[in-house]
Amino acid sequence: MSIALRSAEVMLAADRASRALGIELRSAGPGTGEVTMVVRPDMANGWDICHGGLIATLADTAFAVACNSYGVLSLAAGFDITFLEPGQVGDHLLARAGERAVKGRTGVYDVTVFRLRPDGTPGDPIAEFRGRSRNVGRPILD
Amino acid sequence: MSIALRSAEVMLAADRASRALGIELRSAGPGTGEVTMVVRPDMANGWDICHGGLIATLADTAFAVACNSYGVLSLAAGFDITFLEPGQVGDHLLARAGERAVKGRTGVYDVTVFRLRPDGTPGDPIAEFRGRSRNVGRPILD
Amino acid sequence: MSIALRSAEVMLAADRASRALGIELRSAGPGTGEVTMVVRPDMANGWDICHGGLIATLADTAFAVACNSYGVLSLAAGFDITFLEPGQVGDHLLARAGERAVKGRTGVYDVTVFRLRPDGTPGDPIAEFRGRSRNVGRPILD
Amino acid sequence: MSIALRSAEVMLAADRASRALGIELRSAGPGTGEVTMVVRPDMANGWDICHGGLIATLADTAFAVACNSYGVLSLAAGFDITFLEPGQVGDHLLARAGERAVKGRTGVYDVTVFRLRPDGTPGDPIAEFRGRSRNVGRPILD
Repeated sequence: MSIALRSAEVMLAADRASRALGIELRSAGPGTGEVTMVVRPDMANGWDICHGGLIATLADTAFAVACNSYGVLSLAAGFDITFLEPGQVGDHLLARAGERAVKGRTGVYDVTVFRLRPDGTPGDPIAEFRGRSRNVGRPILD
Repeated sequence: MSIALRSAEVMLAADRASRALGIELRSAGPGTGEVTMVVRPDMANGWDICHGGLIATLADTAFAVACNSYGVLSLAAGFDITFLEPGQVGDHLLARAGERAVKGRTGVYDVTVFRLRPDGTPGDPIAEFRGRSRNVGRPILD
Repeated sequence: MSIALRSAEVMLAADRASRALGIELRSAGPGTGEVTMVVRPDMANGWDICHGGLIATLADTAFAVACNSYGVLSLAAGFDITFLEPGQVGDHLLARAGERAVKGRTGVYDVTVFRLRPDGTPGDPIAEFRGRSRNVGRPILD
Repeated sequence: MSIALRSAEVMLAADRASRALGIELRSAGPGTGEVTMVVRPDMANGWDICHGGLIATLADTAFAVACNSYGVLSLAAGFDITFLEPGQVGDHLLARAGERAVKGRTGVYDVTVFRLRPDGTPGDPIAEFRGRSRNVGRPILD
C-alpha cells in the first residue's frame, strides 16, 4: 500500500469526527486526496440546506488526506472557502484535494466540493476551499 | 423579545446540524451573536484534537446569528479561518461574532472562537474567522 | 483577434496603474490571463524585498484579464494571497491566472506568481492568489 | 519616541514602494498603525477606479506598521481583502490596522480602509483586509 494511502488510513481510523459524519476515503496519492459524504437530515441548517461548516469539514478532511500524504504530520493553519451553491439533504458530495504549492513547512492545497451525479461522476462544484498547512516534521507511520 | 433574538431562535430551532453538535445560543443583538459548544470525543480528528471543520462550524453558526440579526435572510458567501491553537476534547468553546462592515447586500463579520475558563469567561482565542454574507432580502419573521 | 485578447487590450490600455508598474500582457484566453512585471528598486519595501501589495497588484491584474476574458465586465469582490517566498529587486515575475469555477455572477480564479528563469520559463512559485469576481453584466467591447 | 513609532519610521524610511505611492504614516502604537494615500490618476485601473491591488498595498503597509510595532521583525505570510466600494481618483484614503490575535509566531491583524471626509475624519469603509503575519524574531532597532 502506498505511503499516501497508509497515512490516510492511520489518520482516518482515529478521526471520530469524520466517522460521525459518515465521511469515507475514496483515494489518496502524493499531494492528493478524495473523500465523500452524504448530506443527512441532521446536517441541515435553519434554512434547510447543508450547514456550510459541514461542507467545510468535508473539504478539511480531504485537505488533511492530501497534506499528510507524504507520511509527515501537517496541521491546518487555516483555510478559505467560497460557497457556489447550497448542498441539499440527500446529496452525495465528493471533496477532491490537490496540492498547489509547498515551500518549506508551508503548503497550499485546493479542494473542490462536487455534487455527485447518480452515476457517481462529479457534477457541478458547490464550494471551493483553499487550505494552508504547516508541516510539523513528525512521521505519521512507524 | 428583540428582532435579533427572535431571528436567532427561529433559525436555530430548525438548525439540526447545530443541534446535533450541541451548539447553544448565548446571545444575539444587532449585528452580533454568541454560541457555545463543548468538544465531545466524537469531534476529535485523527490527531486527537477538535476537527478544524467543526470549530469552523461553530464559528459559522455564530456568524449566521449575527448576519441574520436584522430579521432579513442572509446566506454565507464564504469565510476564512485561521487556527491559533488546537481545541481539546472537553473544552467549552465560545464563538463571538460581530459585524465589521455592511455595504449593499454584502456583509463582513468577524468571529473569534475562545476557550472558556472554568468560571465561564473567555480565555485565549483559539481561532479567528471572517465571514462574507450575502443578504437575499427575504424576511425571516412573519 | 479573440474576444479574450481584445477585452484585455481594451482594459489594459486604460489601466494606468498597471502601466506605471511596467505590467505587460503576455497572453489572454477564455478564463485565463498572463502578465509580467520586473521588480524595480522603487517596488521594494522596508526590508528590501518586493512589497507584498505589489505582488498582489500583479496577480490582481492577471485575475482581471482572466475574469474579463468573455467580454463582459467583472469586478473583484476580493482576494486572498499567500506568500511563499520574497520577490527580489531585479526579479522577472509572471502571474498566471486560470478560472476555477463560475456560478451565476460569482467567479473564483486562481493566480500563481512565478519567478521567471533566465530562459523565460516559470521557476518557483512565490505567491498563490485566489480572486473572487462579480460579473456586472455590462459588455466590455462595442 | 515610542518603540512602535521608531520601528515604523525605520521601516518606512527604507520602503521605496510606499514612498512611490505617496503613502504617509499617521500613527503607530502597540499593535496598531495608520497610513494615508491619495488616489492619483496613475493608480486607476482600466475601469477608471483605483486598482484593487493598490488599495491592498496601502492596507498591507498599515499591517506592516502594526505587526512590527513591538520592534521585532514580522513578515506577511498572506492576507485576504474584501472590496466594499471602489476608490476614486482624488480620494484621500486612510488604512487603520489593529491587532486581533497573536499566538506564538503567528499574528492576525485587521485593517479597514476608509475614504476620508473633507474634514479629515474617516467616512465609509471601502475595503476590509485581514493580514496573517509571521514573526521572524530579529530586532528592528539597534
